[in-house]
Amino acid sequence: MIETPYLLFLGDAPDMLAAKVAIGIRDWRPENAIGQIRLPGCGADLGLTELSLAEAKEAGAKTLVIGVANRGGVISAAWKEVLIKALEMGYDLASGLHNLLRDEGDLVAAAQTHGGTLHDVRVPTVGYPIANGVKRTGKRCLAVGTDCSVGKMYTAMAMERDMHARGMKATFRATGQTGILITGHGVPLDAVIADFMAGSVEYLTPDNDADHWDMIEGQGSLFHVSYSGVTMALIHGGQPDALILCHEPTREHMRGLPGYKLQSLEKLRDTALPLAQIANPTCQVVGISVNTQHLSEGDARAYLAEVEGRMGLPAADPYRFGSGKLVDALAAL
Amino acid sequence: MIETPYLLFLGDAPDMLAAKVAIGIRDWRPENAIGQIRLPGCGADLGLTELSLAEAKEAGAKTLVIGVANRGGVISAAWKEVLIKALEMGYDLASGLHNLLRDEGDLVAAAQTHGGTLHDVRVPTVGYPIANGVKRTGKRCLAVGTDCSVGKMYTAMAMERDMHARGMKATFRATGQTGILITGHGVPLDAVIADFMAGSVEYLTPDNDADHWDMIEGQGSLFHVSYSGVTMALIHGGQPDALILCHEPTREHMRGLPGYKLQSLEKLRDTALPLAQIANPTCQVVGISVNTQHLSEGDARAYLAEVEGRMGLPAADPYRFGSGKLVDALAAL
Repeated sequence: MIETPYLLFLGDAPDMLAAKVAIGIRDWRPENAIGQIRLPGCGADLGLTELSLAEAKEAGAKTLVIGVANRGGVISAAWKEVLIKALEMGYDLASGLHNLLRDEGDLVAAAQTHGGTLHDVRVPTVGYPIANGVKRTGKRCLAVGTDCSVGKMYTAMAMERDMHARGMKATFRATGQTGILITGHGVPLDAVIADFMAGSVEYLTPDNDADHWDMIEGQGSLFHVSYSGVTMALIHGGQPDALILCHEPTREHMRGLPGYKLQSLEKLRDTALPLAQIANPTCQVVGISVNTQHLSEGDARAYLAEVEGRMGLPAADPYRFGSGKLVDALAAL
Repeated sequence: MIETPYLLFLGDAPDMLAAKVAIGIRDWRPENAIGQIRLPGCGADLGLTELSLAEAKEAGAKTLVIGVANRGGVISAAWKEVLIKALEMGYDLASGLHNLLRDEGDLVAAAQTHGGTLHDVRVPTVGYPIANGVKRTGKRCLAVGTDCSVGKMYTAMAMERDMHARGMKATFRATGQTGILITGHGVPLDAVIADFMAGSVEYLTPDNDADHWDMIEGQGSLFHVSYSGVTMALIHGGQPDALILCHEPTREHMRGLPGYKLQSLEKLRDTALPLAQIANPTCQVVGISVNTQHLSEGDARAYLAEVEGRMGLPAADPYRFGSGKLVDALAAL
């Protein structure tokens, strides 16, 4: 659990592309982002209030979150100066960088001296149990994709927001480092030891109110040979009541696997649903989320209509046209 | 790679049930087992030559393998005495125990002083790559089960032996600690980090001669919610050309999951094969391995005949009746 609210550190990021994490926090948990702090030459700007460490502290910030990727995989001396000063002022630090805060001796020393916590969200900190498969109370929805990086996190986040707006009980459950930094908690599933993957998902989505939905962030794809085991653990550990199928229709091959062509939404339905029903016999596929960013608006609407007709399920692009149809389908379950 | 041949340490094991690893080595790699060494009160006996550390060393033993489970999860003082003496005499040590050799300061010190290696086969020692899914040369066979512990390792081991007897090229590829200790190498798949599972299987089963078969040890089951992610990684990382379906027909529920009933062989075929064909479009289900230990011989033969008729595939109990039919099916591919 990372203490909120955050001050977002943008460092000397060259551009907005490097600021994916900070953008995610601003867009999905604006109440967590009290402001931004930048180094000279920073090319990223979230449009948040520019605050010094002291000003943000005064305003209640608890954690300095590294919201950008670092250049060359090294935490530079310029960054260190701000990070150590933050620890001296009583901040915690949180990071999803590959090079860990805990591997930096000066940060560890400053954290110990001043009682701060270093959150490296790529690294599991919990001894997760082995999954027991026992049926849990409450409801769960999982986004599964025909490929990696087709919008599974965005879909779950957008649906959670719409559900809150309708007064439904819903909690986005993060399974990757970006989601964990955005929400302040979760499981870094791709870094969990094989035997404990499904158990970590059970841990993440415990018993809840009968009308509460866990919106579980998907990972990988059953069709992506590098990461399909992670997806499988989500399907069985999450014991979803509802699956959302996610797709990007213009992709020419599986991400990072030039020899692998995309599979169809029908094949995803026919593969994922029987597997999900092992853990939850009442699971249903309730809708389809399409990432239409590479289609014109007309083509996007035509594609969604065609998919709806073909598959008999609501189809939406949550980013472009809203996730209302998908939430309707969940609410109707 | 653990150096062979071994001297098998049986310690003070109360009975043969505790000696599963030693029995596996004796049965499957007798050429690796130069003899056994026991402590007073040991109730296990492999029927191998009883040798002192010095006698076995003289006979060429390179590694003292802990072939039994330890009582209470602690490496006792009585065990330590033998283990340290072995290191002093130039042995390596190998163990699949939960409590690691490397966590015992006196063993670490003795190993360092005398240049010995401590092999904890539950712990990965290789930085495995992320799977790339590139088609590899040679052939691969994977055993998949309707449940855990239905005879997948035994099936692959028995087939490898029969294939060698026929002059076929085959290598058993261990993916669990027992198999690793038996053969001296492999990947402890259940201890690999999620992102690298499929990559570790690719690493384990590299390019080979066109007529060579890797006989990959299966793990878990696509239907076992605790471990299905590991099975999925084997199916995609192993890119098998042939699947063997494994089953234990008298089991009343999934192992360790009282709420989960067994799935059918037909469902296993229809689930595993399309997933395997993602990584290897020419993959086929070639046969069925049934663990008939809880059936009379008559019932076992009748069951195998019924399954053959129903599924149109050769069905064998490799332990009871030999794996010849399954090897015939591989040879015919």
